Amino acid sequence: MPNLPTRADFIAALDTIRATAPLIHNMTNIVVANVTANALLAIGASPAMVENTEEAAEIAAIAGAVVVNLGTMSPDWAAAMRLATQRAQAEGRPWLLDPVAVGALGYRTRLAADLIEHGPAIIRGNASEIVALAGQASGGGKGVDSILGSEAAIEAAKSLALRYGTVVVVSGAIDYVTDGVRLAGVANGHPIMTRVTGMGCTASAICGAYLAVLDDPFMAALHGMAVMGVVGETAQSASAGPGSFQVVFLDALYALTGETLARQARFS
Amino acid sequence: MPNLPTRADFIAALDTIRATAPLIHNMTNIVVANVTANALLAIGASPAMVENTEEAAEIAAIAGAVVVNLGTMSPDWAAAMRLATQRAQAEGRPWLLDPVAVGALGYRTRLAADLIEHGPAIIRGNASEIVALAGQASGGGKGVDSILGSEAAIEAAKSLALRYGTVVVVSGAIDYVTDGVRLAGVANGHPIMTRVTGMGCTASAICGAYLAVLDDPFMAALHGMAVMGVVGETAQSASAGPGSFQVVFLDALYALTGETLARQARFS
Amino acid sequence: MPNLPTRADFIAALDTIRATAPLIHNMTNIVVANVTANALLAIGASPAMVENTEEAAEIAAIAGAVVVNLGTMSPDWAAAMRLATQRAQAEGRPWLLDPVAVGALGYRTRLAADLIEHGPAIIRGNASEIVALAGQASGGGKGVDSILGSEAAIEAAKSLALRYGTVVVVSGAIDYVTDGVRLAGVANGHPIMTRVTGMGCTASAICGAYLAVLDDPFMAALHGMAVMGVVGETAQSASAGPGSFQVVFLDALYALTGETLARQARFS
Repeated sequence: MPNLPTRADFIAALDTIRATAPLIHNMTNIVVANVTANALLAIGASPAMVENTEEAAEIAAIAGAVVVNLGTMSPDWAAAMRLATQRAQAEGRPWLLDPVAVGALGYRTRLAADLIEHGPAIIRGNASEIVALAGQASGGGKGVDSILGSEAAIEAAKSLALRYGTVVVVSGAIDYVTDGVRLAGVANGHPIMTRVTGMGCTASAICGAYLAVLDDPFMAALHGMAVMGVVGETAQSASAGPGSFQVVFLDALYALTGETLARQARFS
Repeated sequence: MPNLPTRADFIAALDTIRATAPLIHNMTNIVVANVTANALLAIGASPAMVENTEEAAEIAAIAGAVVVNLGTMSPDWAAAMRLATQRAQAEGRPWLLDPVAVGALGYRTRLAADLIEHGPAIIRGNASEIVALAGQASGGGKGVDSILGSEAAIEAAKSLALRYGTVVVVSGAIDYVTDGVRLAGVANGHPIMTRVTGMGCTASAICGAYLAVLDDPFMAALHGMAVMGVVGETAQSASAGPGSFQVVFLDALYALTGETLARQARFS
Repeated sequence: MPNLPTRADFIAALDTIRATAPLIHNMTNIVVANVTANALLAIGASPAMVENTEEAAEIAAIAGAVVVNLGTMSPDWAAAMRLATQRAQAEGRPWLLDPVAVGALGYRTRLAADLIEHGPAIIRGNASEIVALAGQASGGGKGVDSILGSEAAIEAAKSLALRYGTVVVVSGAIDYVTDGVRLAGVANGHPIMTRVTGMGCTASAICGAYLAVLDDPFMAALHGMAVMGVVGETAQSASAGPGSFQVVFLDALYALTGETLARQARFS
């Protein structure tokens, strides 16, 4: 198993986010814009959501990290995402690609293939999306939901990571993180998270916050996915369904400490 | 009174949604995108929100049902809605029209008149919207809120249903459902639901979930409106205002059983 | 200190909103559309969110007030905002400008400069935004968050108010309200409000509701900011973090009375 975040790492990274409040340019969809902005605020980052072609590159150039989520796509937004990721690459700003429903829909599948040329530091998706991105025809999901378990996408993830020099996260019951050489699983979380919209998008946003403060995208992804899983477990145990889950999730994310993360994160 | 859903019907339909997780293509507005996606997840369906012209027809063709809500309109979204409903009609996919603020605003009133030619299985709106759609000049609402009680739109609903061979739902203190011949009322719900944004849009989404699993749109609408009313009452009794109402609503929708529905639904 | 809202004023204004349910045309962003609509419903107003060029002026002409928030901008939305504010001015409908991230991004800074020529009754922003709008180069915020305290923008606010014959609100630990001659501070609220997205946008929406029922925009702004601060304090004291804060905020806004406002509002 590769080196994993230590207790000291967990504490230091979360402290850094809270102390520096990195600006995260979060190009996301109309379904989860509010949820992901609140998650970024709750962990201590400063979200900005700018999807127009006039401004997207301007803010990408000054952001700590850029998150590009294809959830609700349009030609204008696609153009803004091309500009923002191009500029992020040019300025050395790390960015994350969340290829929502890639594989299931042709237009965004082609867009994702283009964006990936701009060097994302992390690609985070479900198994169907990752398999589709890696060019394996069998990955087509049903809309935004995966029809594959995350373990079925490990080889696709490794191959994608090596081909593009990026880190790939496959979300699922176990979240797999790989840079093509290193591979680790995060075994936290709870199935209720698939009954709340935007948990994947939130995972991408939180990984973006860690990208802004850590040099190694592999470690940033492990931190981010550990946060999602640990906070998700806390929220599940204190809630009565998907409505209260969302409320407690933000409260728990706000109250999260690096010590709690270190104690509860389960890597495999 | 027409045949109404029986206890066995309530149980079977809800079980089918949860067992098959039908893909609902939910073309809705920026105000309620999150809320309606969460409601669809809570009842057990799989929501997809795709409003662009490149992809809207593609996903309509594979959806269990399509929901078209005119809440926040734009020329691009309108074009996508034309394509999606045309394709749904061609593929025999049932779709629902939610004519938000039709009558109050000219552009969307003309759009709704066009879309209706693509054969919606259900039209669900408030009394002002239904009266306006039926071509009766007196229906103009105030923005998105009706100035008429639902009973004032029953004749308009019947005439609209007969003219287009569709089912019409008029939401209000009593929700009326008609196919022009059959007429039934659902007497559940609570006035607090008018103080929470998106309850009407959520009703449309839930009716869409039932459209995907039931052949008769009249029955699908009765199931959907019964769910809204029963869950709304549960949420109201367990909440302290419109904020906690929304939380409990999702929890209760997630926990809902067909038995509870059968016991608490009140038809008139 | 200028005349401030009295106990009778607080009661009368809130009663008027609840009795008349003024239509508020709330042109806002995809992050907070749901939250601000719910806040308007909770206080008793009737929100409409129309951002397209076909309809924005039509609804502005019949609205009690128009709120224009630049949060997630696009060329289409910008065109709709130009039309809506022009029409509001022509029809004598009061409107409020919320210049989100003006100063930090060039496109919207130019747009705000244009819109301001259409005579907003109120401009509400954070200190960085107000300083930037007043043409002082030092105001650039970090994305949507201010890097200045509100007191640092008082002179800019006064000068802006005098130049355009408007009322300017600078949100912060103390919210300052000025028409260039009168100046008052509202000392309510809690820092947790900066960890929840859309509190500023909600303040703008609530000020819009008061604009619809009060003739003096200076007083409307004081009422609106007092509501935000008082309800924010109530919500903070009854919540465990930013998730539950949002829930309790809507419940408390719905339950708010003029007497509570009068008792808890702290002006300086």
